[in-house]
Amino acid sequence: MKPLLAAVFLVSNLMPAPVPAAEPEGEWHMAARDYGNTRFSPLGEITPANLPKLSLAFTFSTGVLRGHEAAPVVADNTMFIVTPYPNLVYALDLTKPGAPQKWKFDPKPAASSQGVACCDVVNRGVVYSDGKLFFNTLDMNTIALDARTGKELWRTKLGSIEKGETMTMAPIVVKGKVLVGNSGGELGVRGWLTALDAATGKIAWRAWSTGPDKDVLIGPAFKPFYAQDRGKDLGTRSWPGDGWKIGGGTVWGFITYDPETDLVYYGTGNPGPWNPEQRPGDNKWTSGIFARKPDTGEAVWYYQWSPHDLHDYDGVNENVLAEIPIKGRQRKVILHPDRNGYLYVLDRASGQVLSATPYAAITTSTRVDLETGKLVYNPAKDPTAGKTVRDICPASSGAKDWQPSSWSPRTKLLYLPMQNICQDAQTFETSYISGTPYVGASLEQYAGPGGHRGEFAAWDPVAQKKVWSIKENFPVWSGALATAGDVVFYGTMDGWFKGLDAKTGKLLWQYKVGSGIIGQPVSYRGPDGKQYVAVLSGIGGWAGTIVSGEIDPRDGTGANGMVNLTKDLPQYTAKGGMLYVFALP
Amino acid sequence: MKPLLAAVFLVSNLMPAPVPAAEPEGEWHMAARDYGNTRFSPLGEITPANLPKLSLAFTFSTGVLRGHEAAPVVADNTMFIVTPYPNLVYALDLTKPGAPQKWKFDPKPAASSQGVACCDVVNRGVVYSDGKLFFNTLDMNTIALDARTGKELWRTKLGSIEKGETMTMAPIVVKGKVLVGNSGGELGVRGWLTALDAATGKIAWRAWSTGPDKDVLIGPAFKPFYAQDRGKDLGTRSWPGDGWKIGGGTVWGFITYDPETDLVYYGTGNPGPWNPEQRPGDNKWTSGIFARKPDTGEAVWYYQWSPHDLHDYDGVNENVLAEIPIKGRQRKVILHPDRNGYLYVLDRASGQVLSATPYAAITTSTRVDLETGKLVYNPAKDPTAGKTVRDICPASSGAKDWQPSSWSPRTKLLYLPMQNICQDAQTFETSYISGTPYVGASLEQYAGPGGHRGEFAAWDPVAQKKVWSIKENFPVWSGALATAGDVVFYGTMDGWFKGLDAKTGKLLWQYKVGSGIIGQPVSYRGPDGKQYVAVLSGIGGWAGTIVSGEIDPRDGTGANGMVNLTKDLPQYTAKGGMLYVFALP
Repeated sequence: MKPLLAAVFLVSNLMPAPVPAAEPEGEWHMAARDYGNTRFSPLGEITPANLPKLSLAFTFSTGVLRGHEAAPVVADNTMFIVTPYPNLVYALDLTKPGAPQKWKFDPKPAASSQGVACCDVVNRGVVYSDGKLFFNTLDMNTIALDARTGKELWRTKLGSIEKGETMTMAPIVVKGKVLVGNSGGELGVRGWLTALDAATGKIAWRAWSTGPDKDVLIGPAFKPFYAQDRGKDLGTRSWPGDGWKIGGGTVWGFITYDPETDLVYYGTGNPGPWNPEQRPGDNKWTSGIFARKPDTGEAVWYYQWSPHDLHDYDGVNENVLAEIPIKGRQRKVILHPDRNGYLYVLDRASGQVLSATPYAAITTSTRVDLETGKLVYNPAKDPTAGKTVRDICPASSGAKDWQPSSWSPRTKLLYLPMQNICQDAQTFETSYISGTPYVGASLEQYAGPGGHRGEFAAWDPVAQKKVWSIKENFPVWSGALATAGDVVFYGTMDGWFKGLDAKTGKLLWQYKVGSGIIGQPVSYRGPDGKQYVAVLSGIGGWAGTIVSGEIDPRDGTGANGMVNLTKDLPQYTAKGGMLYVFALP
Repeated sequence: MKPLLAAVFLVSNLMPAPVPAAEPEGEWHMAARDYGNTRFSPLGEITPANLPKLSLAFTFSTGVLRGHEAAPVVADNTMFIVTPYPNLVYALDLTKPGAPQKWKFDPKPAASSQGVACCDVVNRGVVYSDGKLFFNTLDMNTIALDARTGKELWRTKLGSIEKGETMTMAPIVVKGKVLVGNSGGELGVRGWLTALDAATGKIAWRAWSTGPDKDVLIGPAFKPFYAQDRGKDLGTRSWPGDGWKIGGGTVWGFITYDPETDLVYYGTGNPGPWNPEQRPGDNKWTSGIFARKPDTGEAVWYYQWSPHDLHDYDGVNENVLAEIPIKGRQRKVILHPDRNGYLYVLDRASGQVLSATPYAAITTSTRVDLETGKLVYNPAKDPTAGKTVRDICPASSGAKDWQPSSWSPRTKLLYLPMQNICQDAQTFETSYISGTPYVGASLEQYAGPGGHRGEFAAWDPVAQKKVWSIKENFPVWSGALATAGDVVFYGTMDGWFKGLDAKTGKLLWQYKVGSGIIGQPVSYRGPDGKQYVAVLSGIGGWAGTIVSGEIDPRDGTGANGMVNLTKDLPQYTAKGGMLYVFALP
């Protein structure tokens, strides 16, 4: 092992991804492992040469059958996993054969929260920091546990399921603050990012995604790059009347932190309702990206991926920190593959769009104007009440959704779990009733050009093109994992966990798990010095809710048109909830 | 492969276990594989030498989280599994990588049947016969499916959940008849064995376990070996008044068939209520074994393991056909490890008890009188209303319960999954209300002598002693599997699947599965010619219902005193429902 470890150390020293000071390279403390959201493991024991021998080390049943979107987290020879509702947290002792349960924590969330969640009752993971675990419950609590004992240290209630609010995202901890956001963009929820004191659970600050500048924490430090984002109280003035109060912009994706700029980056969700004719204006600050100071929450810049979002593209997809050469100069950038079909490269400090390139079939817009930063919509695809608009590509679920990509600083490629979906849509006037769906659209999603519904692709952000790509029958709704061994992993909704050569995309290994995979694969070093790869299986989420929620396939508009796309999924997979952990023999 | 196959062929020719004519040695058509209930696989590829290399081939999530007691069944390169309630049946295509789902059948049983089942909502397996699958639903239907398509061919309703009846047992098919029995001995159900025409589902005959001779199908052919079983209408006369009408004797264990004697053998369950003072008499024909003609159902002989059953010992444990030398003469016998702690050897034709030897700690009786055939109770342990009787060994759950043993005709050993449990009991007067518990006893079960709660032992029925034994922390509630490679398998409630040297009991391999194992391991030959071993994981059943039923551990008398024994189980395992299939690399 020694020579290997030394090699790995060099690699991670040469190309550092920002991680908390206390995170050893063999551990995995937050859903994305590092603050840069690269999901790159610096472990290199598993290589294209030995990957075909990868074997199952152990499994663990979570006792829950809904969609398992979480990343397992590893610290101090213990693995921590959080389940979908009822959000059980397990600690598994990696030092013992079979990794037996060390403790289990049941937060007992309100059962009624299940009825509020838009798209299955998922949870995307816990975060470990300084001996504590932090996670969110579906019923709007952030909870801190003692990682050693599972004892509850504090819990803070952050909102109300009665209003349609839930929490599904994986928090991160930055400079002693736990950053969490809410879900509920389909129920007229007003989005926010909240910082809690990690020691006490007290709210340090809250930044709303809509409303007057004081609510959005916009002040003198705010210097957006583009003109359309400058001006007083745009978070109210870009809305009709009080629309911003029920206007969405929820914060349910992954949060990035760059210690160099000392900025956190995160996306805001779709404006509500989906029917765009009910909310003329840009609908700020929805479907965009904020850069904020973690100490105070002050906004530093903002960019809107989809102004006046016409198709529920949200803006919450991951923002990945990378360094790449642009026009001969090494630039510190954010890579962002948006649901609207463009892969954006942004300057980390200013929010300037350096490039925005289609990475999927797009009919809803023609380009991003790099001069103005504006997305140029195709008016032929604008939703109009009473009219059926066909061939909307990407569909509302996007060219990719929340499922996070992985960036390898070795191959300089971004590994993208993707969809290939278009839709027909009808919009109609809808009324707001607190805690109920506030959408005003009826969709039928279907496979895009080529007929496949999913894809896993390697994207070169310098050349701005796909280097290789694998077509999948179903949307690839799992996260991606790249490692220093130059292999990448992802899972499919029909239950295959796949390992590829990171450079060529060649399939070197695959394993059939019990239920479809929508979780986030991770890698860690066990107490025995070996590299392990772990992933949760358990179909569900928006794309798999036809199985996990037992939805009648006869109405294709179910689950906002996702049922039409996934009618045959129940023939491929059954509900499950199981951790799989692999290693070389 | 060829030399191996030839060797195996010889083995199975030398020591035949009766199987249906159409069952190849690489398949597994019924829960016990063969009519003799040996659970012996004639496949010999996996041996003590290569067992340590056994690896996981694939897994499959059933989408159900209650106790998984079923045996997977394999025919025509397809695996069939039935889940606990809601009794989904899956067909998996073994010819394709990862064994994808071929079809799925949902019988849609009445949800109210869940409230009636005494001890989790288990199902013990399907049976394959002549292109058809037969299985029972918890809500009292026997269903026939086309094994190729999963299409329902017929369903026959056999009883009523309103009376507390359920069905959990695995049927067998004998001479064109599907044999099924009912459950509900804790709810005053009157037990029966029913034969259905395999082609049409029409009831051919029904043999009640209590009542007048005409109901019990006792006629001129009935020749019990012992005097106490002879006489008219003992099924009513050995009961107070009409007690026999609500007197139990349910038939929920495995059924054996001997083509040579042309007799089916099966056990009858406990008399109701448990409180014995409410039912003076022998309570025939409960807690005993019947031999019947499969064509007509006529009883040929009967023997009562536990007359006037004082401790809920039932009589349904498996009856295994074997040939062993007794006093220098080769005898065709039935091996029966009873819950009452004795391992019986019976003559197949007459029902004579050839030996009855304690195989566990027993305080409730002193011996079985081979002259009279009578169990000699220890009056100090007789339940008396209002009195707490302590140190009842075995406990009501027995020295072993339903979990079936396996007989190897090669090692001549019976492999016993066992408990080591005693209990304190209080009995009290109870009243019968249709469809509700009819017990009249309050128990607290606890570990027996030595402090371990489970054991896996190899029993030599000739020498009448244990050859080796392994202590386990929890009751061994899974079935056993022996193979022609001289290895044996079993699973533990804390989730280990173990492989041993059949001769020495040496642990050669173990694998940690996701949830505790209470299923029945099986072995088959895949389309690639390799030997596979399959088992369902998913804690539950009577012993695991504290986890699967989420029972409050603070009341030790819960689940008829099983909660007291298994209070710590939730720390060891979580709910699950997953098929695991293993093979050599």
